[in-house]
Amino acid sequence: MKLLDPLFRGGACQAAFSDAATVQGMLDFEAALARAEAAAGVIPPAAVPAIEAACRAERLDLDGIAADAARAGNLAIPLVKHLTAQVKATDEAAARFVHWGATSQDAIDSGFVLQLKQALVAVEADLERLIAALAQRVAEHRHTVMVGRTWMQHALPTTFGLKLAGTLDALLRQRERLAELKPRVLAVQFGGAAGTLASLGDAGLAVGQRLAEELDLTLPATPWHGQRDRVAEVAAWFGTLTGVLGKLARDVSLLMQTDVAEVFEPAGAGRGGSSTMPHKRNPVSSAIVLSAAVRVPGLVGTVFAAMVQEHERGLGGWHAEWEALPELIGLSAGALAVSAELVEGLEVHADTMRANLDKTGGLIMAEAVTMALGERLGRLDAHKLVEQKCRQALSEGRHLKDVLQQEPRVTAHLSYEELSHLLDPVNYIGVADALIERVLTAALAGN
Amino acid sequence: MKLLDPLFRGGACQAAFSDAATVQGMLDFEAALARAEAAAGVIPPAAVPAIEAACRAERLDLDGIAADAARAGNLAIPLVKHLTAQVKATDEAAARFVHWGATSQDAIDSGFVLQLKQALVAVEADLERLIAALAQRVAEHRHTVMVGRTWMQHALPTTFGLKLAGTLDALLRQRERLAELKPRVLAVQFGGAAGTLASLGDAGLAVGQRLAEELDLTLPATPWHGQRDRVAEVAAWFGTLTGVLGKLARDVSLLMQTDVAEVFEPAGAGRGGSSTMPHKRNPVSSAIVLSAAVRVPGLVGTVFAAMVQEHERGLGGWHAEWEALPELIGLSAGALAVSAELVEGLEVHADTMRANLDKTGGLIMAEAVTMALGERLGRLDAHKLVEQKCRQALSEGRHLKDVLQQEPRVTAHLSYEELSHLLDPVNYIGVADALIERVLTAALAGN
Amino acid sequence: MKLLDPLFRGGACQAAFSDAATVQGMLDFEAALARAEAAAGVIPPAAVPAIEAACRAERLDLDGIAADAARAGNLAIPLVKHLTAQVKATDEAAARFVHWGATSQDAIDSGFVLQLKQALVAVEADLERLIAALAQRVAEHRHTVMVGRTWMQHALPTTFGLKLAGTLDALLRQRERLAELKPRVLAVQFGGAAGTLASLGDAGLAVGQRLAEELDLTLPATPWHGQRDRVAEVAAWFGTLTGVLGKLARDVSLLMQTDVAEVFEPAGAGRGGSSTMPHKRNPVSSAIVLSAAVRVPGLVGTVFAAMVQEHERGLGGWHAEWEALPELIGLSAGALAVSAELVEGLEVHADTMRANLDKTGGLIMAEAVTMALGERLGRLDAHKLVEQKCRQALSEGRHLKDVLQQEPRVTAHLSYEELSHLLDPVNYIGVADALIERVLTAALAGN
Amino acid sequence: MKLLDPLFRGGACQAAFSDAATVQGMLDFEAALARAEAAAGVIPPAAVPAIEAACRAERLDLDGIAADAARAGNLAIPLVKHLTAQVKATDEAAARFVHWGATSQDAIDSGFVLQLKQALVAVEADLERLIAALAQRVAEHRHTVMVGRTWMQHALPTTFGLKLAGTLDALLRQRERLAELKPRVLAVQFGGAAGTLASLGDAGLAVGQRLAEELDLTLPATPWHGQRDRVAEVAAWFGTLTGVLGKLARDVSLLMQTDVAEVFEPAGAGRGGSSTMPHKRNPVSSAIVLSAAVRVPGLVGTVFAAMVQEHERGLGGWHAEWEALPELIGLSAGALAVSAELVEGLEVHADTMRANLDKTGGLIMAEAVTMALGERLGRLDAHKLVEQKCRQALSEGRHLKDVLQQEPRVTAHLSYEELSHLLDPVNYIGVADALIERVLTAALAGN
Repeated sequence: MKLLDPLFRGGACQAAFSDAATVQGMLDFEAALARAEAAAGVIPPAAVPAIEAACRAERLDLDGIAADAARAGNLAIPLVKHLTAQVKATDEAAARFVHWGATSQDAIDSGFVLQLKQALVAVEADLERLIAALAQRVAEHRHTVMVGRTWMQHALPTTFGLKLAGTLDALLRQRERLAELKPRVLAVQFGGAAGTLASLGDAGLAVGQRLAEELDLTLPATPWHGQRDRVAEVAAWFGTLTGVLGKLARDVSLLMQTDVAEVFEPAGAGRGGSSTMPHKRNPVSSAIVLSAAVRVPGLVGTVFAAMVQEHERGLGGWHAEWEALPELIGLSAGALAVSAELVEGLEVHADTMRANLDKTGGLIMAEAVTMALGERLGRLDAHKLVEQKCRQALSEGRHLKDVLQQEPRVTAHLSYEELSHLLDPVNYIGVADALIERVLTAALAGN
Repeated sequence: MKLLDPLFRGGACQAAFSDAATVQGMLDFEAALARAEAAAGVIPPAAVPAIEAACRAERLDLDGIAADAARAGNLAIPLVKHLTAQVKATDEAAARFVHWGATSQDAIDSGFVLQLKQALVAVEADLERLIAALAQRVAEHRHTVMVGRTWMQHALPTTFGLKLAGTLDALLRQRERLAELKPRVLAVQFGGAAGTLASLGDAGLAVGQRLAEELDLTLPATPWHGQRDRVAEVAAWFGTLTGVLGKLARDVSLLMQTDVAEVFEPAGAGRGGSSTMPHKRNPVSSAIVLSAAVRVPGLVGTVFAAMVQEHERGLGGWHAEWEALPELIGLSAGALAVSAELVEGLEVHADTMRANLDKTGGLIMAEAVTMALGERLGRLDAHKLVEQKCRQALSEGRHLKDVLQQEPRVTAHLSYEELSHLLDPVNYIGVADALIERVLTAALAGN
Repeated sequence: MKLLDPLFRGGACQAAFSDAATVQGMLDFEAALARAEAAAGVIPPAAVPAIEAACRAERLDLDGIAADAARAGNLAIPLVKHLTAQVKATDEAAARFVHWGATSQDAIDSGFVLQLKQALVAVEADLERLIAALAQRVAEHRHTVMVGRTWMQHALPTTFGLKLAGTLDALLRQRERLAELKPRVLAVQFGGAAGTLASLGDAGLAVGQRLAEELDLTLPATPWHGQRDRVAEVAAWFGTLTGVLGKLARDVSLLMQTDVAEVFEPAGAGRGGSSTMPHKRNPVSSAIVLSAAVRVPGLVGTVFAAMVQEHERGLGGWHAEWEALPELIGLSAGALAVSAELVEGLEVHADTMRANLDKTGGLIMAEAVTMALGERLGRLDAHKLVEQKCRQALSEGRHLKDVLQQEPRVTAHLSYEELSHLLDPVNYIGVADALIERVLTAALAGN
Repeated sequence: MKLLDPLFRGGACQAAFSDAATVQGMLDFEAALARAEAAAGVIPPAAVPAIEAACRAERLDLDGIAADAARAGNLAIPLVKHLTAQVKATDEAAARFVHWGATSQDAIDSGFVLQLKQALVAVEADLERLIAALAQRVAEHRHTVMVGRTWMQHALPTTFGLKLAGTLDALLRQRERLAELKPRVLAVQFGGAAGTLASLGDAGLAVGQRLAEELDLTLPATPWHGQRDRVAEVAAWFGTLTGVLGKLARDVSLLMQTDVAEVFEPAGAGRGGSSTMPHKRNPVSSAIVLSAAVRVPGLVGTVFAAMVQEHERGLGGWHAEWEALPELIGLSAGALAVSAELVEGLEVHADTMRANLDKTGGLIMAEAVTMALGERLGRLDAHKLVEQKCRQALSEGRHLKDVLQQEPRVTAHLSYEELSHLLDPVNYIGVADALIERVLTAALAGN
């Protein structure tokens, strides 16, 4: 048990990176290697069944492997020893061919790629779930007018649909990037001790090809023991995802402030209750996602820093990946799962959104008036005039409309009706609807 | 002048991020905006020439803009003021339409994308130059046998061609990633104050489309003021490139150690001389690339961390990009330029490579013997036997061949000729040549 | 000119890291070295005046040094060459003794320490200025009641004085840490080519001692060419400072939201005006500080990562410090200067603070009631009862006081007067005043 | 079980951050709080025994707490619920006073500080162990001459004692920093829901003082819910430690290269064996320390980035600390324990060190000759002459001594005996011994 796993790593992909899954990933490699080598005539086919049978994590002493790893420097060395002992117990002849021609890193990296592949299935499902939820909420709130905020200040009206469409649009790009990276990064690692497969004689490439097929992975042009751009690409994808989700969570937490109260995280038993303030509803989901967004960038940086590895197989950099990558992926996938739940259950207070638009006494509509006047007075002069009227409205505590109606330079150009129309937020959301249409179309196209 | 620019940012792309280029990027946006709005009937065509004419960085007071930016909070606000004043001086009517309907971030982000586009031209050229240099050196050293090193220890023989092919292979993936990201990230920013283009009425999308064409950029589905996955993707690409180059530089610096002396950075006047040790030749290029590899991951992390931006346009996160992105790109591009020069001029001492293979008195060929014996004795038993013989050779200070020849369990299976063949590194490089072939084929295919 | 320097690096210490100051730092080392060596009888006293006279940055060709540095790998090698040429022009005999017995890193590191020392003078002044401003505002707002917010929700009342006292308290700890680190990090670097001062024979330590005195720096136990904990300590101090300021800026920006409007950044010409929304007042100072808070952690990480340096003088890690440290210090010092100005001029709307306390219709006082009832009903039961009443108040849109007054389980224990007193925020700020007293006392004691 | 804990977190302090210890830390806070509140007359003394008795981690359902935490957003909320239920089962009256007046963060932060305090005991012990081991090895190798290497090239002779003394010196500074930070960071967290201790009326400070005494922690001037400089200081200390150790491990791994072979990590069963190369001895300890040095800087950056927390208690930043801090501390402490073992058992090949000094055919002594000649010819001329002779020696494959002896400009100034003396590395280690003396004296003084 890890106390904080349910909080931070609620995604379905966490199972892919459990200790047992880590060991099983390496064992799946070892079993597939035996099959591939038998098929290529490198080891006797008779050796395969015993090896395959022993390649089950539940049959190995994981504590013993962990303890031995501290001395050996990685998990694969003790794993191969324990595995060989297991095979030997049932088929001494087969035991000779365990891990034949491979190196520790072949097993560890390929095992990781298998875990990643499994994780990506869960992550893709959650990504599609979030995309679907967002698309639905975007459609639902296509015309829900609210305050657009820039620099954390009221700026101009926008719609809640457009706000969410921005996140949806970013996630569609993530979907596209994921499709691009999968064939590149889901690649088997197989090079033997120094990347030449020397111990397999001429059979190296044939075994590699078969091994890749067995594991349903790509066979890369060369072993990538010391070339870690693939793991960097994975880290960057999850890092980008986390950033997109962090932006969403930041916005939700800002909109959920008591002083704003435009949206609320879904309610539920035990969710966000404060131990001492009975009236509070803490944005728990946002906190989880935001904490991932604080932590993941450092982990991305770590994976990038670890790329500088020495010679054919490096020292320290590779080792740094072993925990950093699962941590990064787990936090990001956890944030994704939480975000899907958050968007699906988000309570949207459209009334409050509408009410908050009036908080500035019409000032938020100043640009609408400026632009309308700008065509007559020039942008800068209109800007100056409206700025002056806004200051007057503020200092006198009056609504901008009142102030503008008493200003001859305004009324010379704008009737009362025009002014009223200009000051209604619903009439000043530009191409918001068309932009939403573009994103929703793309979202559907991508499915 | 910046003292360390020539050292760290020697790449051709540095010009793309000079202060003048930053201002010109924004001005190019403003000029294109005027043309697009005139074409869409939003502003009078007569306003365009005066605006276009004023959109030259050399005509503006950059010091004044910089000073004003400290109060305004960004460069675009004072730039638009200065620009408007310039236009007003020649065409008062046109001055009304400067920056019409746009927001500061439209100019700043689009300006950055234009700079990036220009930088990528230079970076792609240097990338192709490095790819070509590597391909040539790979072909040249296809059969140059050397020590393969893992965990910073002699492991097995490999070839210098294969070593470089690993880097070449990674760079081919970078080329592929670059082709994928360009249409995605070379996107215009255009949304107006809150991302709705409200001030342009119904003409927003038409202006946006025309503006994108004017600038030869993509028009994205939605404005990306608060969605920063594009800049994260750019940062990750340069970060990955830097990591790949850092690995190359680490290897060069290790091979150039006085104790190894297998390769040397190109010589030249003033290159790497020590102020007090006349015999030294410092690996200056490696130092530059390695320092970039130390710095860039932190900058990548920063760009990812900055993604959590507030609402329609954020506070702090966006501002954090302004220097971090050019810094990251400049360091990476500098490392790329230095690397191309390094690989082109690299002195390779094939004789020393060959000689260093013998440093362990045959021990490096132990696996070859182990594998050959493994087929008869089983992998583990053969491993144990050879391990024992290796220890004996070490402790008695003898060559492994001598020791093996006197061991009946070895001679029972291997003749003197077989043993001699097994102990010659040239015969134990596995599929190195086939792997090289795969990479060189891919390198040519990509052109 | 650097366009964004005035925006991000407004602190007085920026001058300490200009290009000229960097060169002058090294030259001050060279001049002091000559004096120290003459005093120790290592070089002829007659050589000193010519060397000293030439050690002026304005007399050297900085562009030439920068260009040569790209080949030499650092600034000191070409600087010594240029300097020697200068000396030679006036005193050929003295030229022999320029840089005598020192290595490039001695000049570069000592030069940096001299710049740091100068920067710390400016930083300390700004730190004291901010401490004084905070102390004054804390005293001023000792009794200004406002909403305390946790998880970005209204929680309980607090005072604006206590809020600022938290930042003040943290800065007092920074003052303490600064006093501790100065003797440790303001240490001369002097070890010669490999840290043994071999070229000075037995005079090494005597010269070192004299050199340290000349520069008013500490002579450390050993040269620290490869031991970079000192620079890490500096980076961490500035990083911590930036974090403290970032927290302050985050709070200011949150309090300055249009929906909260409790404090405002100081107004002024050109400060925070929006180019399109005449009514907005952007929190420009907060944006600058927050952007520093986004960028500095990555730079801190970089300086820490760079500590892993090779042997007597390393490759890449040291080079990574050259720009990262000044960048980090400049951003942090800029944020400090901006923060001082921000706190000094901060507009505090105590009325709005008071009004916002009522936004939740008394709910913010729920804990006060819970605690009072808890003594009679038990904490959990009281918690449940008040939670239920809060929900009722919310769902019925009534003030909590009304709801409580109609609840027999409440009125059985609390009279109307007691309830009114309990629901007045002024009566529920606990030991806020005593906590403020502790901090103000400490602030005065530290001066 | 966590597979990689034994490998990466072998330090004695890991127990301090187990799940059980995390819960126990919070429970220790709750028990002490009850005692303190009883002593201050805030809760009835009769409530204490039942609360104390229930405050045992082994009595609570950790899985249940973990599951509930995912909804509540932190561990303390469900922990208090479970704890209260436990107390209620034995003493219903006492159950009312569990967690009285405290907030979740009081328990979580104070619990962390208690864990940290326990961890620091173990860390200090390992630090003293490493200091002692280094001091012994420094003394032992005070006169062991070896190659000093700069820019990863042979530079000048040094001693192995001085090399290790640099690390020792850095660790003495760490000891000093640790003494300074302990009173500052080992501070109780106690502020109640909004940092005012409002629910305790006037008794807040008295309870706080007593609570601090109970836990043997400092009572800080103000609660530090939102002020995280303390945790940043802790992170920076461990980060600096890791950097110092990473530098040591980098050097060991470089010196252990097959091509250098000057030192070796301690041997032992299962230590560093390769699965396919029987002759290899992998630097396992160095790999562990170096991987920590790659990972910790990103974690330090994360803790610094997390400092920007909102208002009285923040959202996301605080949550980010929960796993990042223990991870950082665990990796650093693990690296420390491994380093102590490494230094204690390090095999030093003084003969090889001596032999490697001759690898450059006397070139490494060039500075000695340059300095000697410099006094007669001037530094630059001597530099040029010796540089020329070095090139000649290199190109002709001769020993520098031979070449120098045939050069009249040399023999005019230096006799054969003088030259021989100058070319013996033992005679060119400057003040190495005196520097060692300074460090050893300081090491002893500090105990």
